[in-house]
Amino acid sequence: MSKIVAFETTDVRFPTSLSLDGSDAMNPDPDYSAAYLRITTDSDDGLEGHGFVFTIGRGNDVETTAIKALEAWFAGREVEPMLADMGGLWRELVYDSQLRWLGPEKGVMHMAIGAAVNAIWDLKAKREGLPLWQLLSRLSPEELVDLVDFRYLTDALTREDALEILTAALPARAEREAALLSDGFPAYTTTPGWLGYSDEKLVRLSREAVADGFTQIKLKVGADRADDVRRLRIARETVGPDIRIAIDANQRWDRDDAIDWIRDLAEFDIAWVEEPTNPDDILAHAAISRAIAPTPVATGEHGANRVMFKQFLQADALQVLQIDATRVAGVNENIAIILLAAKFGVPVCPHAGGVGLCEIVQHLSMFDSIAVSGTTDGRMIEFVDHLHEHFVEPVDVHDGRYWAPKLAGSGAEMLAASVSEFDFQARG
Amino acid sequence: MSKIVAFETTDVRFPTSLSLDGSDAMNPDPDYSAAYLRITTDSDDGLEGHGFVFTIGRGNDVETTAIKALEAWFAGREVEPMLADMGGLWRELVYDSQLRWLGPEKGVMHMAIGAAVNAIWDLKAKREGLPLWQLLSRLSPEELVDLVDFRYLTDALTREDALEILTAALPARAEREAALLSDGFPAYTTTPGWLGYSDEKLVRLSREAVADGFTQIKLKVGADRADDVRRLRIARETVGPDIRIAIDANQRWDRDDAIDWIRDLAEFDIAWVEEPTNPDDILAHAAISRAIAPTPVATGEHGANRVMFKQFLQADALQVLQIDATRVAGVNENIAIILLAAKFGVPVCPHAGGVGLCEIVQHLSMFDSIAVSGTTDGRMIEFVDHLHEHFVEPVDVHDGRYWAPKLAGSGAEMLAASVSEFDFQARG
Repeated sequence: MSKIVAFETTDVRFPTSLSLDGSDAMNPDPDYSAAYLRITTDSDDGLEGHGFVFTIGRGNDVETTAIKALEAWFAGREVEPMLADMGGLWRELVYDSQLRWLGPEKGVMHMAIGAAVNAIWDLKAKREGLPLWQLLSRLSPEELVDLVDFRYLTDALTREDALEILTAALPARAEREAALLSDGFPAYTTTPGWLGYSDEKLVRLSREAVADGFTQIKLKVGADRADDVRRLRIARETVGPDIRIAIDANQRWDRDDAIDWIRDLAEFDIAWVEEPTNPDDILAHAAISRAIAPTPVATGEHGANRVMFKQFLQADALQVLQIDATRVAGVNENIAIILLAAKFGVPVCPHAGGVGLCEIVQHLSMFDSIAVSGTTDGRMIEFVDHLHEHFVEPVDVHDGRYWAPKLAGSGAEMLAASVSEFDFQARG
Repeated sequence: MSKIVAFETTDVRFPTSLSLDGSDAMNPDPDYSAAYLRITTDSDDGLEGHGFVFTIGRGNDVETTAIKALEAWFAGREVEPMLADMGGLWRELVYDSQLRWLGPEKGVMHMAIGAAVNAIWDLKAKREGLPLWQLLSRLSPEELVDLVDFRYLTDALTREDALEILTAALPARAEREAALLSDGFPAYTTTPGWLGYSDEKLVRLSREAVADGFTQIKLKVGADRADDVRRLRIARETVGPDIRIAIDANQRWDRDDAIDWIRDLAEFDIAWVEEPTNPDDILAHAAISRAIAPTPVATGEHGANRVMFKQFLQADALQVLQIDATRVAGVNENIAIILLAAKFGVPVCPHAGGVGLCEIVQHLSMFDSIAVSGTTDGRMIEFVDHLHEHFVEPVDVHDGRYWAPKLAGSGAEMLAASVSEFDFQARG
């Protein structure tokens, strides 16, 4: 038996606003940040669990405090019973009635629980000597459904439904794992499309994206309609008709404005429209989906929890589901969401970028393709070439694809030197 | 001109779990708490702005930290321009892109903004020498709509719609204010109905409620079906056929369980069914509403923001709308929600209880009845006789009614001695 002996948090912030990397219609000056958690045990193996919540600057201290508030729950706790019942761990944390009051199941406290859950998954994968995607892909259907809490989901997905989905994918798991290792996983890039970039930079980065093998790029829109038309025309002329161009409004519009604005951009053959309006607005997303069909609506990076995703699927309010590695309560809740997407036949194309989101979320997509949906058709993971150098195993993206990570763990572990160098509180 | 010179927060917790006051199907052991804020200026008038977020124990430190994180925004700021543009204040805080990332517009950070906004309203009302309900009821329709942010609401409520509602209520304002002062505002009581109470205590407190003039009581349900049937039978036999009995499941059920369970309780003539399932689940609430009609569904105390309330109304997913004084981003957002309710013709019956929720939320209902919906028909404010002694102006509830508060301010100010005595961090 081993015990948790340290539960250390750090308010890590990178001063990205200086270069306008990451600028969009709602977020003009983000400082990409991580409320970072490192869990240490007294085991001789020396293995640690790392996890974090991605934020964009101010408030990263609040998020760090929320993670730290969980220390009382973890300090001194025996590790092995926790690793043996990760579904129980999730339920115990998420249904702590006093903490749940602070959401419920949304915002700062819910994300903090996600960081802690993910850190324990990181530790579990390291102990088993497997990258997280491989660990999850080798669990039995029964072990996987035990990770999921079906409360509030049963009108759309029962335990039996989930078992059926997972069992159907079982026979071809080995074949798909081999295919993943040899062919990688499709990626798309948002690198060319930030609002703060000049037209010249948009052209140059779009050309580079195509040269790098990407078959989809994404442009931020929603600040100025004439600018959007101009930038989309430039992008389309630059990449030609065969490269997919998605657009991302970052919640800029009201329902009817969205429908109207998107019609002006339709001539550029849009792959999907991302976050057209408020991320809580299921009914508006459903109306926009009906109005702009067959152009798909994509959303999810700000989806607070599995109950919101369930409703978006029930209402046909999204046609591309974008999970996020650190918005919901960790791996368990994302597995629930991936199962919901499979039940409704909707592709999961994760949100990534930020800091470390690519590193973690790739594991979930790879698991999805092997053990849940059983396909990479229509699936791709967002890629932004940014801040990867701070991670122990930076993503390997080339030829327009993610290549499966090899190190044991969840991908969340940042270099100790980076955590230390960008410790916002230590810099004062 | 005066400036903000202090922005003090306190983690106030009352050890209520010891007596099982406040126990329900999801919250077995709450310690009623307030993440408390006191804003001081350098004005000679000595007036302060007080506000807080109500929580139920663990995590109150996180909420307090989130409020404290806003100090940088307020410290040294000139007061008068803020008081002159409360709508601008709200927008500036809620749309701070870095803080917004932590929700968006939900959970710990959004509630913290609510506490700060409410503290400024408290200060404004004190400076104008009016209780908040009276201050709001005397603003012009144009001044009121300037307080509201219509972003994401325009598919249900535009500025013009809101002006029309407010203008229609204008002529009879004075008459309704006089009626409020002479007749009070209807109340109902939850005091008899906590799950942790014995049958004997249920009977005794139900009798007292009727003797005290209440025409509605509310019982917690959802832990055990046979217990619910027994307790409802006891309550109905105790109060007779003319007293309304509402039930509150505190999110206990999945959609189909709710429908099934509620049918078993229908024989007791239920006034409304509160929080039957997850508070984010608009579609499930709509299905439950259809299934149990004409019994109304009530919800809202965990409604994260105006966009969620908008959808509940659009989907006919609630028939009684329960605002909460400290869940959304303060007075401004609650005015938006009250206007939405008026647009859809749905009565607002606030959630209260906890600590200080009655003291604040009564102002909003009184304002609603005078200047928005223009009626008290079908409206009542929840009352729990608990912890009022800690406030500078405890609610005055007798003869089954709330009587309009007279002191200038929002009602949020706690006695300094209570803040000090129940300072959780100071007690160590």
